[in-house]
Amino acid sequence: MREVAIIGAGVTKFGELWDASFRDLGIEAGLKAMYDANLTGSEVDGMYIGNMSSGRFISQHHVGALIADYTGMASRNLPAVRVEAAGASGGVAFREAVMAVASGMHDVVIVGGAEKMTDVTDDASNSVMDSANDQQWEATIGATFASLNAMIARRCMHEGIATREEIASMSVNDHAHGALNPDAQFRKAISLDTVLRSGMVADPLTMFDCAPISDGAAAVVLCPMDIAKRYTDRPVRVLASAQASDSLALFQRKEITSFSATVAAANKAYSMAKITPSEIAVAEVHDHFTIEGILALQDLGFFAKGEAGKAVMGGQATIGGKIAVNTSGGLKARGHPVGATGVAQIVEITKQLRGDADKRQVANARYGLAHSVGGTGSTVVVNIMEAV
Amino acid sequence: MREVAIIGAGVTKFGELWDASFRDLGIEAGLKAMYDANLTGSEVDGMYIGNMSSGRFISQHHVGALIADYTGMASRNLPAVRVEAAGASGGVAFREAVMAVASGMHDVVIVGGAEKMTDVTDDASNSVMDSANDQQWEATIGATFASLNAMIARRCMHEGIATREEIASMSVNDHAHGALNPDAQFRKAISLDTVLRSGMVADPLTMFDCAPISDGAAAVVLCPMDIAKRYTDRPVRVLASAQASDSLALFQRKEITSFSATVAAANKAYSMAKITPSEIAVAEVHDHFTIEGILALQDLGFFAKGEAGKAVMGGQATIGGKIAVNTSGGLKARGHPVGATGVAQIVEITKQLRGDADKRQVANARYGLAHSVGGTGSTVVVNIMEAV
Repeated sequence: MREVAIIGAGVTKFGELWDASFRDLGIEAGLKAMYDANLTGSEVDGMYIGNMSSGRFISQHHVGALIADYTGMASRNLPAVRVEAAGASGGVAFREAVMAVASGMHDVVIVGGAEKMTDVTDDASNSVMDSANDQQWEATIGATFASLNAMIARRCMHEGIATREEIASMSVNDHAHGALNPDAQFRKAISLDTVLRSGMVADPLTMFDCAPISDGAAAVVLCPMDIAKRYTDRPVRVLASAQASDSLALFQRKEITSFSATVAAANKAYSMAKITPSEIAVAEVHDHFTIEGILALQDLGFFAKGEAGKAVMGGQATIGGKIAVNTSGGLKARGHPVGATGVAQIVEITKQLRGDADKRQVANARYGLAHSVGGTGSTVVVNIMEAV
Repeated sequence: MREVAIIGAGVTKFGELWDASFRDLGIEAGLKAMYDANLTGSEVDGMYIGNMSSGRFISQHHVGALIADYTGMASRNLPAVRVEAAGASGGVAFREAVMAVASGMHDVVIVGGAEKMTDVTDDASNSVMDSANDQQWEATIGATFASLNAMIARRCMHEGIATREEIASMSVNDHAHGALNPDAQFRKAISLDTVLRSGMVADPLTMFDCAPISDGAAAVVLCPMDIAKRYTDRPVRVLASAQASDSLALFQRKEITSFSATVAAANKAYSMAKITPSEIAVAEVHDHFTIEGILALQDLGFFAKGEAGKAVMGGQATIGGKIAVNTSGGLKARGHPVGATGVAQIVEITKQLRGDADKRQVANARYGLAHSVGGTGSTVVVNIMEAV
């Protein structure tokens, strides 16, 4: 396999972007990434799009070809592939693109992630989100995304893995970083009290435990490492890209206080990268709900089981702590346009490893990790990058 | 890149399968392919699913993980990827799987295609199909899939590329072959008169010019050629897999009597395979509407422009003719469960190249081609296989 480099990265603002259509967002992120990689566009020979549900959010399927079309690249017959794995869509699209370059089938590939969620009602978007889980055995009997995560949170509290306050502190950590990110949906630090006192969604999770509904897009450009210097003097090396799955339904699991797909993907990724979790300086983890962030920090090996909540609450996951987690603001504060999130995580890690993260820069970061989840831990992708 | 082999193939019956759910169909096709490849399942280390719109047909996203789950493979954390490119979903999923094996990232990969279309009303399924085209500039102003293809047919008739009768003969060809395929949705030969006299859908195209709405699934298993003999003594070599795109909207094209994405993907595929169109003995072409089949035969280089209609009408596309086209029955007679179609084409070519096609067997076929289309020629994948 050829070694793969990230040579460009771009992201739109995330939020309720009523002035921008799906195609506007996809194009904006793509152009930013290409500009960042010093490309004119003609060098690109492949395109991947991570997207969860353009079919239900904007009544448009076939958005790989759509973005190829509206960027002008379809006019030279560029192949474009849309990948969907619910919340992991962006992470899976990135991994497909890595394989496309590693295999030699493509040389310069752009990977975008995009979602436009605010053109439908909240009910409709929640129904789409719930369809990432097992429609037949969860969603149709009323189990929402929030209620499934609430059960996980309850079980963690029961087993002494994390207290309510420790779980809530994941949101405080995200918001502290989001305040430093001009592209984040929420750019305001909050206190623990704000999380605990906000409206109840699914006991014990409140509104501030849940990522918002968002519009946005992100993109990165990949090429073989041996030609990366043609385009940039600051490429980032893709050390590992690993994916795993688990049952869609939560009741099928042996345990719900750990996601086996995260453990499996992480173990494979560390083995491919030949590094240990303690060497990761900066990580973007998938915290659609705060409890998911706490589990991720344990399943990825950053903290022992039962220690992640304490660590986050004690400031060990902030910039300057043991490991800088969700410097972008994470899903809670940066926002969560589903298909865009996995790629936005890679954009943030790329910026950190290049020293481009401005006020949220982590000092001397060599290794960064992005962790992307679809459903309630049913698809997980772990990507590890290295500064060159 | 490693050379890739097809070592197993399976397909469900296609049709209005009210007794079978989406997951039933996906599992049936997958098990048939694994059984055909003499696998127990534990050898499989990756999975791809081509599917257009489980989100709207069955309110379920995330069907990569779903099928991994219900085949029991999620219990060992198998990575599963869903790919969508409208009608080309299956063809694109196959190409991603080929890259996954060629790159060395995976060894034994199963590729499925599945769609369950008959659980919603005809109106709803037509609305999904139309969203493969440009929603903003075609579907919302009333341009249906059938009407866009009717415009292409009209233009071809106007330019003398094909007569109405020649276009209709593509349906006769499909039905003649479908009658020989026990898995086809329609297993009855028809006359030209049946096509011409059936109900008008979009002038000049009648009901018998249009592929039906179908349920069904298909699957193949891939591995590196150098280990294929471990599993089967009859592997089929994947010689080429090429993809191209074009604008979503028809009005953006320079011409509509040829699909530039088919020409681009075919040229690339022939160049990868180092063969010419005249060496292909058997081809499955994407004829969602009869006119698309006629154009495909020209754009793939089997017949000169203006000659394909005459050739089909003259019996040159039947088994025993110049090139055996759509021996499975094609989209018209085998049926068109959108995401399954591209993989079902590969299953048919695999059977032909192994000599397993029973009553529809083409004698001494060495090279076979599968042509998969999304939208109105907006995504095209061309795969070329060789008997070993």
